[in-house]
Amino acid sequence: MSDQMQHITLASRPEGAPTPANFSLETAPFPTPGAGEVLVRVHYMSLDPYMRGRMDDSKSYAAAVPIGGTMEGGGVGEVIASNSDRFKPGDVAMGSFGWATHAVADARMCRRIDPDAVPITTCLGVLGMPGFTGWYALHEIGKPKAGETLVVAAATGPVGSMVGQLAKSLGLRTVGIAGGADKCALARDTFGFDACLDHRAYPDARSLRKALAEATPDGIDIYFENVGGKVLEAVIPLMNTHGRIPLCGMISWYNAGGLGAGAEAAMSVPALWRTILVQHLAVQGFIISNHWDRMPDFLADVAPRVVSGEIKVVEEIAEGLENAPAAFIGLLEGRNRGKQLVKLA
Amino acid sequence: MSDQMQHITLASRPEGAPTPANFSLETAPFPTPGAGEVLVRVHYMSLDPYMRGRMDDSKSYAAAVPIGGTMEGGGVGEVIASNSDRFKPGDVAMGSFGWATHAVADARMCRRIDPDAVPITTCLGVLGMPGFTGWYALHEIGKPKAGETLVVAAATGPVGSMVGQLAKSLGLRTVGIAGGADKCALARDTFGFDACLDHRAYPDARSLRKALAEATPDGIDIYFENVGGKVLEAVIPLMNTHGRIPLCGMISWYNAGGLGAGAEAAMSVPALWRTILVQHLAVQGFIISNHWDRMPDFLADVAPRVVSGEIKVVEEIAEGLENAPAAFIGLLEGRNRGKQLVKLA
Repeated sequence: MSDQMQHITLASRPEGAPTPANFSLETAPFPTPGAGEVLVRVHYMSLDPYMRGRMDDSKSYAAAVPIGGTMEGGGVGEVIASNSDRFKPGDVAMGSFGWATHAVADARMCRRIDPDAVPITTCLGVLGMPGFTGWYALHEIGKPKAGETLVVAAATGPVGSMVGQLAKSLGLRTVGIAGGADKCALARDTFGFDACLDHRAYPDARSLRKALAEATPDGIDIYFENVGGKVLEAVIPLMNTHGRIPLCGMISWYNAGGLGAGAEAAMSVPALWRTILVQHLAVQGFIISNHWDRMPDFLADVAPRVVSGEIKVVEEIAEGLENAPAAFIGLLEGRNRGKQLVKLA
Repeated sequence: MSDQMQHITLASRPEGAPTPANFSLETAPFPTPGAGEVLVRVHYMSLDPYMRGRMDDSKSYAAAVPIGGTMEGGGVGEVIASNSDRFKPGDVAMGSFGWATHAVADARMCRRIDPDAVPITTCLGVLGMPGFTGWYALHEIGKPKAGETLVVAAATGPVGSMVGQLAKSLGLRTVGIAGGADKCALARDTFGFDACLDHRAYPDARSLRKALAEATPDGIDIYFENVGGKVLEAVIPLMNTHGRIPLCGMISWYNAGGLGAGAEAAMSVPALWRTILVQHLAVQGFIISNHWDRMPDFLADVAPRVVSGEIKVVEEIAEGLENAPAAFIGLLEGRNRGKQLVKLA
C-alpha cells in the first residue's frame, strides 16, 4: 500500500455539457483519520446525475463543489484504519467518499455493508440512494393504486427501473421511456415494463405524446419526473385528474447550466400551470436526503426482493478512477445501461 | 309578478377579454318546477373569475357554457314555488341559478339560508364558495404554521381576504398583493395584512420581486396562487424550502383564451420546475367542488367569526341583471372592491 491516493477535482465549471477538461486527476498523501473517523480504500464509486448540479455554483439544495475541490459522491470500500468502535479494519463501509481512491469519513456517517448478504455494489444503486429515491417518492408522493398508469423516463436507470418494478408489483400499468431500442428492450424484458418508448425515435414532444397516448389508453395517473424536457411536455396533457408528479430530477436540462438560454421548453408556464389547476395535479419536489429515517423501511421491503431476484439489478461498471469523468459524461448523455459505477480497487 | 323572466346568455365566445357583445340579455317564460324542484326569484347573483373559463370551449374541469346557453353562476333568492318538502314558498335558498332573475333548481342541490343569522349575500362570498375555497386550500394544502409567511394576490377579493385573515389569526406574517393604493389600504386596514403591495406600481416581475423580498424578510412559505402572471414570477424565487403552493386560479391569464399567444411568461418551465425541485415545493391544483363534504366544518369555524365581526366582509354590488356583463368585465380587470355581486330583485 502506497502512502499516496488519487482523487478527481473540479478543474473548472462546465458551460453546458461537462468535458474532460473540467476534471483533474490528482495525487495526494493519504489523509489521517481523526477521532471517530475511518480511513476507507474505495472499491466502487457511484456516478449519479445530481453530481452535475454540484458542478455549477447556482443556488441549489446542496453547496457547489469548489474549484479545486474533490468531486462529491457515494462509494463503498474497505476500512483500512479506524478510530471508531463502529468499524474495524476489514469491514465494508458505504459513505460519501467522493471521487477518490481513499477517503477519511466520520464513522457515524458511514453505513456498514454485509458483503455476504448482497453484492456490495448494490448499496450504491438498487439498495442505495437511487433505489431508495424511487421507492420513497413512488410511495409517499406517487401514492400508487392498482389499475392506475405510471410513466417514468430513464426507465433503465437505477431510479426508473426501481419505480417501474415496484409499480408493476402493485398492479399498475407501467410505461417507460428510454433512449434507444436496446434500452427499451431491457426495460420490457428485464424490468417488466408493459411498454417502453424510445424517445430518440420521436423528434419532438408532439410526436412523443402521440405514441405515449397510444401506450397509455387510460391516461397517466403518476408521472415520476426525473428528466424534464421533451418528455415532460409530452406527458402533461395526458395526465388524469388528481394525477401525481413526484419531481425528482430533470436530467435533460442539467447541462443547461443556470437554465437560461440553453434550457428551452415549447410548453409555456401558463399552459403547465393551467393543467395543474384544471386536472388537480399534485407536483412535489423532494430531495431524498431529507428522508433517511425511512431507509430501514426501504431496506426491509426491497432487500429481500433483490436477494430473491424479484427486483432486477443491472449495472455498468467503468474501470479505474481515471475513467470516471468519461463515464460521468456518458451518463449525462444516456450512454450507460443500468446503474453506472466505477471500480477502483 | 309577470310570467316572464330575464336571463343572460353567452352570445359568442370571447377572444381575449370578454366584451359586452359576448353576452345577450334575453326574456323567457318562467320555467315550471318539476318533481323535487323549486322555483326561485333570485335576489343576488355572484360574479366569480371561474366564469371566464366557462366561456371558452377548451378542456377544463367543467363543461363550457354552450353558445346561447345561460351563463352559469351561484345566486341566492326567495323560493316562490316548491315541489319539494325541503323548501316552502318564502324560504331563502342558495344554488346554481345562473345569470337569471328566476330559476328552477333541484331542491337537493340548494342550501337553505337563514336570513336572520347573517346577511344573505354572505352565502355567495365570505360564507360561500370563495370563502370556503380560501379556508379549505389554506388549511389542507397550505398547512400554515405560526411564524411562517404567506403571500396571496387579489388580496381584497373574497378568496384572498379570507386566506389573509385566517393566516393572520394563525400567527403567520401575511403579505397581500392588490391592484391600486386603495385596495392595498383596504387589505392592510380592514383585512389586517401586515403588508400589501400594489402590483400596478411595478412594471415587471423583477421590480415586484424586489419589493416583495423586502416585505418578506424571512422568505415565503405559502404562496396562495390565484393570479399567475407577474406575481407568480415574482414569488417563485422567494419561496422557502418546503414551501406550499395551493393552485386555485390564475386570473391574470384567463383572458388569454386557450393560453396560447396571449399568455406570456418570462419565466421558463425549466426555471419553474427547477425551483420546485431544489426547494422541495409542493404545488397542488384543486377545485373546491370536490370538497363540499368539508363545508359544514368551514361554516362551523367561520360563520361565528363573521357574525362576531372578527372576519370582515366587503362587498361591491351592481344593480340589475343588465349590468352583470359590465360588472363581470370589471371583475376580470380588477375594478371591483371586495366580493362582486349583482342585485336583481
